[in-house]
Amino acid sequence: MNILNINRERLQSDIETLADIGRNEDYGIYRMAFSEGDMQARAWFKQKAEEAGLEFYQDGAANLHARYQWDEKRPSVMMGSHMDTVPAAGHLDGALGVIVALECLRCIKEQNLKIDFPLEAVAFSDEEGRFGGMLGSQAITGMLTPEKIINATDLNGVTITEAMKNVGLDAMDALHARRQPDSIYAYLELHIEQGPMLDDMSIGIGNVDAIAGLFKWDVILTGAANHAGTTPMDMRKDAFMGLSEFASQLQRLIDESGSPRSVATIGRVEISPGAANVIPGKVEFSLEARDTNPDTLDDLANAFRKSLSAIARKHELMFEFRVLSEITPVKSDAGIVETIENVCKSLKIPFLQMASGAAHDAQMMANITRAGMIFVPSKDGRSHSIAEWTDMDDIEKGANVALNSMYRIAGGHL
Amino acid sequence: MNILNINRERLQSDIETLADIGRNEDYGIYRMAFSEGDMQARAWFKQKAEEAGLEFYQDGAANLHARYQWDEKRPSVMMGSHMDTVPAAGHLDGALGVIVALECLRCIKEQNLKIDFPLEAVAFSDEEGRFGGMLGSQAITGMLTPEKIINATDLNGVTITEAMKNVGLDAMDALHARRQPDSIYAYLELHIEQGPMLDDMSIGIGNVDAIAGLFKWDVILTGAANHAGTTPMDMRKDAFMGLSEFASQLQRLIDESGSPRSVATIGRVEISPGAANVIPGKVEFSLEARDTNPDTLDDLANAFRKSLSAIARKHELMFEFRVLSEITPVKSDAGIVETIENVCKSLKIPFLQMASGAAHDAQMMANITRAGMIFVPSKDGRSHSIAEWTDMDDIEKGANVALNSMYRIAGGHL
Repeated sequence: MNILNINRERLQSDIETLADIGRNEDYGIYRMAFSEGDMQARAWFKQKAEEAGLEFYQDGAANLHARYQWDEKRPSVMMGSHMDTVPAAGHLDGALGVIVALECLRCIKEQNLKIDFPLEAVAFSDEEGRFGGMLGSQAITGMLTPEKIINATDLNGVTITEAMKNVGLDAMDALHARRQPDSIYAYLELHIEQGPMLDDMSIGIGNVDAIAGLFKWDVILTGAANHAGTTPMDMRKDAFMGLSEFASQLQRLIDESGSPRSVATIGRVEISPGAANVIPGKVEFSLEARDTNPDTLDDLANAFRKSLSAIARKHELMFEFRVLSEITPVKSDAGIVETIENVCKSLKIPFLQMASGAAHDAQMMANITRAGMIFVPSKDGRSHSIAEWTDMDDIEKGANVALNSMYRIAGGHL
Repeated sequence: MNILNINRERLQSDIETLADIGRNEDYGIYRMAFSEGDMQARAWFKQKAEEAGLEFYQDGAANLHARYQWDEKRPSVMMGSHMDTVPAAGHLDGALGVIVALECLRCIKEQNLKIDFPLEAVAFSDEEGRFGGMLGSQAITGMLTPEKIINATDLNGVTITEAMKNVGLDAMDALHARRQPDSIYAYLELHIEQGPMLDDMSIGIGNVDAIAGLFKWDVILTGAANHAGTTPMDMRKDAFMGLSEFASQLQRLIDESGSPRSVATIGRVEISPGAANVIPGKVEFSLEARDTNPDTLDDLANAFRKSLSAIARKHELMFEFRVLSEITPVKSDAGIVETIENVCKSLKIPFLQMASGAAHDAQMMANITRAGMIFVPSKDGRSHSIAEWTDMDDIEKGANVALNSMYRIAGGHL
């Protein structure tokens, strides 16, 4: 099969240009959704699409589409990601996926290659969550409701209605961005791994076969806050000792009830009253677990509950927990995973079949179409940070895998 | 030997009167040193001393002395405690010890009992630490320096010089409060236990044979803050997992290197960055250990250091610690412990020979004279709280043990 190559210089130039939009010398890049930086990036995308002779379309959720051979009657092959960022972000994250998608369309158009489906390069609105996260891909997949739009506010109390009105948009139009499942043949997304595995193993490409789901709990253990000097060890109801015992058994619980892909994290801990000479009477902490298998997540939740109950009894603590969020794992389309694998083999690029531990727009898109993801390495696993880095050689490899995968899929090879 | 009895009604009335000074209906009692409440309590003490025909004396550190048969040439038998409180305090804590001391002098004076040494009932200034703690007993024992006085400020930045000037006192005069060791024959202090042991065992009296010393560390474990979804368990440098492992081994370390009197507490923990979806890159926590034997404290410190080093290596963390404070344990005078024991037996009052886990003015006094303490039970171990409670029957027993002990000691029976 024909092997296509992206234009490395053009790709690099686009990465560098977009990296300067929304950049602050001191704090890195910040393109919050619908901020000035975000709007500049949007204008840049539109200009690039039009320069390339692609059809530009902005849907009701302000998702940007660059389209090639668009035809409403045929389902499209879509590739994309997002250009908005967290505060103090690096230059890759979602931006790289948008640029690569654009580059793929440009290459296929320039070479006038025969394809069976229209192509779309998409930049989704507000993936990072100024208003909850994955706004654009939720809108396209029909997960957005009028209630969500009415109630969405950012951390400063600005409503999504105000924020979008400020830039000339009507938030309620987002409901019209919904696409019918049969209007999208497949969805591809290239993204940096945001984890250390590819970098650690010196493998250039991750072929993502699943995106992990998760549960996130708020757990409270309540004991008794007593004097640290006068209360003997065996008369204490030390809430922190309960938490410590649980935390020190977390790996065992994962070994017993999880999978090699399971992770669990206690990232936030608040201790009351929090003085050196007072035994902690209460701890409140976050407990988050992720896996690509929903049954494994259930098993982990049961194991955690049992362990926490037992530890609470043993330390005479009260145990309560609240589910803060639950996200169901999503599988990539087997055909897309196989296509990416075959492309990697054709291109002689070593790859790792792996899970995505982070959430992506692809997670939403998988609800209505075949979806797959290509990862490129994150240096030292860093992301959401100015330390975010991927070597240009790896970016080029990833973009070529994306291009050839898109071309094969658009040729009906799924 | 003659058995003396305190006047229960008078004692109870004094407790109730003092409990109303500095009381706020909503927040309990607050008599911060040199505050209006503290000054009212001081005025009340002076009035009570004078009503009882005792000589009133205020030393340079504003310690209040009620004296009976005062004679500068003979060492005194001193009993006392403090009337200042923490915020939202209960009515007993130090106040009870001052009232009981006053009552002992009144009883001995009323019965015109023959004694060999002058008696002093003392209310020490600022035991609770508006300006560092144990100000008055430090002054008397010569532990106070001009530098300490110049540098002492409260949490609001008020200097001790200003605070004392506001109530007509000169802070530098505190240096003149120093007493020569040979001017005090013995020091006794009655205090609530502030722990649960006596209440739990339904024993009315604690005969304190030692006051625990302590070390308090600030410990920092530094790992790497990475994405909780994308970083596999075996590639993490999770600072909180290091802390948890250490905390879950604390009891074992005490069992191996401590004594049955050892306690250790992790009371304050700060986790960075502290988000549910980020692996903790850093934990900073307090580690406090107490024991009545200085060698045991050394052994515990060594064991903790070794354990933290090993855990840091295992989890690839950096381990640092800083000693925040060290207090050397203090032994009660064997003669006083024996006297209290004999008094309890004479009075047929069950007692427990025990350590004090909390710090007291007696700890300072032990540096220059024979010292001993009598504990009464704290209901459920509560103190520094409006829930502080001791049954009047137990208070009466404690006061009678104090009275008879003071009388025997003042009669030269040490």
